[in-house]
Amino acid sequence: MPEFFNVLPPDQALQALIEALPPSPVAIEELPLENSLGRVTASDLFSREDLPAFPRSTMDGYSLRAADTFGASEGLPAYFSIVGEVAMGRPSHITVAVGEAAVTYTGGMLAQGADAVVMVENTQAVDSATIEVTRPVAPGENVVQPGEDINSGERLLPAGHLLRPQDLGGLAALGVTTVQASRRPRVAILSMGDEVVPPDMDPGPGRIRDVNTYTIAAQVTRAGGEPLPLGIVPDDYEEQLSAARSGLKHADSLVFSAGSSVSVRDLTAEIINALGEPGVLVHGLSIRPGKPAIVGLVQGKPVFGLPGNPVSAMVVFDLLVRPALYHLAGCPSLPEPATATATVALDIASASGREDYVPVRLTGNAENCLTAEPVFGKSNLIFTLIRADGLVKVPLDKAGLYAGETVRVRLF
Amino acid sequence: MPEFFNVLPPDQALQALIEALPPSPVAIEELPLENSLGRVTASDLFSREDLPAFPRSTMDGYSLRAADTFGASEGLPAYFSIVGEVAMGRPSHITVAVGEAAVTYTGGMLAQGADAVVMVENTQAVDSATIEVTRPVAPGENVVQPGEDINSGERLLPAGHLLRPQDLGGLAALGVTTVQASRRPRVAILSMGDEVVPPDMDPGPGRIRDVNTYTIAAQVTRAGGEPLPLGIVPDDYEEQLSAARSGLKHADSLVFSAGSSVSVRDLTAEIINALGEPGVLVHGLSIRPGKPAIVGLVQGKPVFGLPGNPVSAMVVFDLLVRPALYHLAGCPSLPEPATATATVALDIASASGREDYVPVRLTGNAENCLTAEPVFGKSNLIFTLIRADGLVKVPLDKAGLYAGETVRVRLF
Repeated sequence: MPEFFNVLPPDQALQALIEALPPSPVAIEELPLENSLGRVTASDLFSREDLPAFPRSTMDGYSLRAADTFGASEGLPAYFSIVGEVAMGRPSHITVAVGEAAVTYTGGMLAQGADAVVMVENTQAVDSATIEVTRPVAPGENVVQPGEDINSGERLLPAGHLLRPQDLGGLAALGVTTVQASRRPRVAILSMGDEVVPPDMDPGPGRIRDVNTYTIAAQVTRAGGEPLPLGIVPDDYEEQLSAARSGLKHADSLVFSAGSSVSVRDLTAEIINALGEPGVLVHGLSIRPGKPAIVGLVQGKPVFGLPGNPVSAMVVFDLLVRPALYHLAGCPSLPEPATATATVALDIASASGREDYVPVRLTGNAENCLTAEPVFGKSNLIFTLIRADGLVKVPLDKAGLYAGETVRVRLF
Repeated sequence: MPEFFNVLPPDQALQALIEALPPSPVAIEELPLENSLGRVTASDLFSREDLPAFPRSTMDGYSLRAADTFGASEGLPAYFSIVGEVAMGRPSHITVAVGEAAVTYTGGMLAQGADAVVMVENTQAVDSATIEVTRPVAPGENVVQPGEDINSGERLLPAGHLLRPQDLGGLAALGVTTVQASRRPRVAILSMGDEVVPPDMDPGPGRIRDVNTYTIAAQVTRAGGEPLPLGIVPDDYEEQLSAARSGLKHADSLVFSAGSSVSVRDLTAEIINALGEPGVLVHGLSIRPGKPAIVGLVQGKPVFGLPGNPVSAMVVFDLLVRPALYHLAGCPSLPEPATATATVALDIASASGREDYVPVRLTGNAENCLTAEPVFGKSNLIFTLIRADGLVKVPLDKAGLYAGETVRVRLF
């Protein structure tokens, strides 16, 4: 059973895939604003108006002409006649002239003729119609000018932007109630192996329940995609090829959770090549766990052969499938994963020329005193990952990590 | 317009709220495993079986009795008769005796009588029925023992655990296809103000479109909750009280996006007290932006008065509402937010005795060379947050940050 790998580091494997991807892989759909969180904008969005549209006060107080306050002090206050109140939510019909002021609330419009707001704290009522101002204000003080938030014609958001809560707020502020976004990338998931049964079955001796359909589907959801689980297919070339063909028809990407024996891995590569051009791009990664992974492209759609071991499958998904899904959605810069800084508890040996991903458990409470203890376990043990809080990477050019070294833990 | 704040730092305000919360705030529901990502377990889960249930090979090779290989070498190999093949997915009916071996695949069951697997790479075929083994194996080598992943009776997951992709995989492996989880906390959102109109309306002079319903609803979704937007209510005590009452009836928590003038903020506090006991717990936080925030509790349900300014509202949500929602769901340790380490580009002044949250934009590419440039802008400008990549905290006891200082940026 010979095995020749064209082994690449994961970043180079990803690069090879991305360079081969077509420019606009997934379709565009129109979404109501309130359903667009975490979606990717399909085009640049420009403002059609100034925000705010009118000069707004940032304080409760009086709008007036700043020049009339110049020189005012506790000892020598400036006097103003109150000519009215600018009600919230109404256009201001009040005009202030020299020596006049209008009651103005936070968020409200300034009176006509006013160019500043004096805070109520810097005034004193003399009688019901007169105040004294004890501190001068500069023109524009305590005022948000029209267009200060954003100007008409300015770009709100670029294409390929992942929408966050504040982006939804900004779009609402400008009256944008629908968004053109990339469709969620659909990912067909094929779980393979004569020994695999669905989780609601009693496997009996020699068989195991399907794990990877569940972990991979959840990872797809987290990466903004839509999982399409295709079920379990036995180790048979024709059956797998036909299931893969039909999956690829309905999906933007296809993930094989491959059997783990060498012959079965070779079967996956053969099937990816049979599905269409160019087929297999990378066969094998210089990482552990995850070395036997396969990266391919068929009809412009990324196809991945993930190792059958759940730990390997999850690591390879994170390194390759997740970024590929963001690329499919048109978002080249994927969101940073959550990380924590920790001190390694024990020496962790590795081999140089290979990236190692070591599951660790974090102990300790304070923000900077976390300790990362490696969770040793064979990569076919799913509970290795369940007992862990994250992964530590030992880079390609290091032969390990020393106890006491500070590392960044990728949380999961 | 007098204003007396019982001002607390945000962590103390949160603590006061959490201590007053009832023990089991939200109901429990049963979910199919595939829909349980990001949900919180309602009880401890125990394994009802050993995983794996049988000894599994981790390699392609031959299962045999380890003792028969002792002393084997390239020069003096041990000879074995092949007595059959353990097919994948079938119970093994083959028994190996002294000097016998059975073909065994990765993930497959060992032959009866075998206690180790020799890798195919360490064997040579002599003829179709005989191999020589050139390296000894220890008992248990290349084997996952029954229960090595998890034992029957062992705790799989504790109550209050936020379900991750690998947890779903582990539950599937053990035949758990439904999960008892806390219902998503429902959060009623009330947007208040005479000047606020829905985003599909042209506001005209003096009015603005509703921003906070959208930012807050999206933040609720991100924190695992279910937003129930109640629309816009004018600055009227009776109308707001009645909208708040009906919102609280259907929700586990209530968020007021308050008007921003002092009188309107006082109105919110009055309404929270009128809704029921104990009412307002904290009125004012020692942070900027976000000082005028209100934290209350009514009928065991957390009630928040968020400042009307979108930036303040988002900061206070992150510091108080988000952790409160995890508590409502029974998950005391909320997931770490994504952060990045960066160098401050400019001096940032602050006041000691107050936590400052400064929106920053990150520039630079490499993992450790990011620069954080403050995005200065009034906290009522939503585009301040849209132009920013995250927030930098200036702690209570610091009077600012110096250019060149290394900080942790909370990404959003």
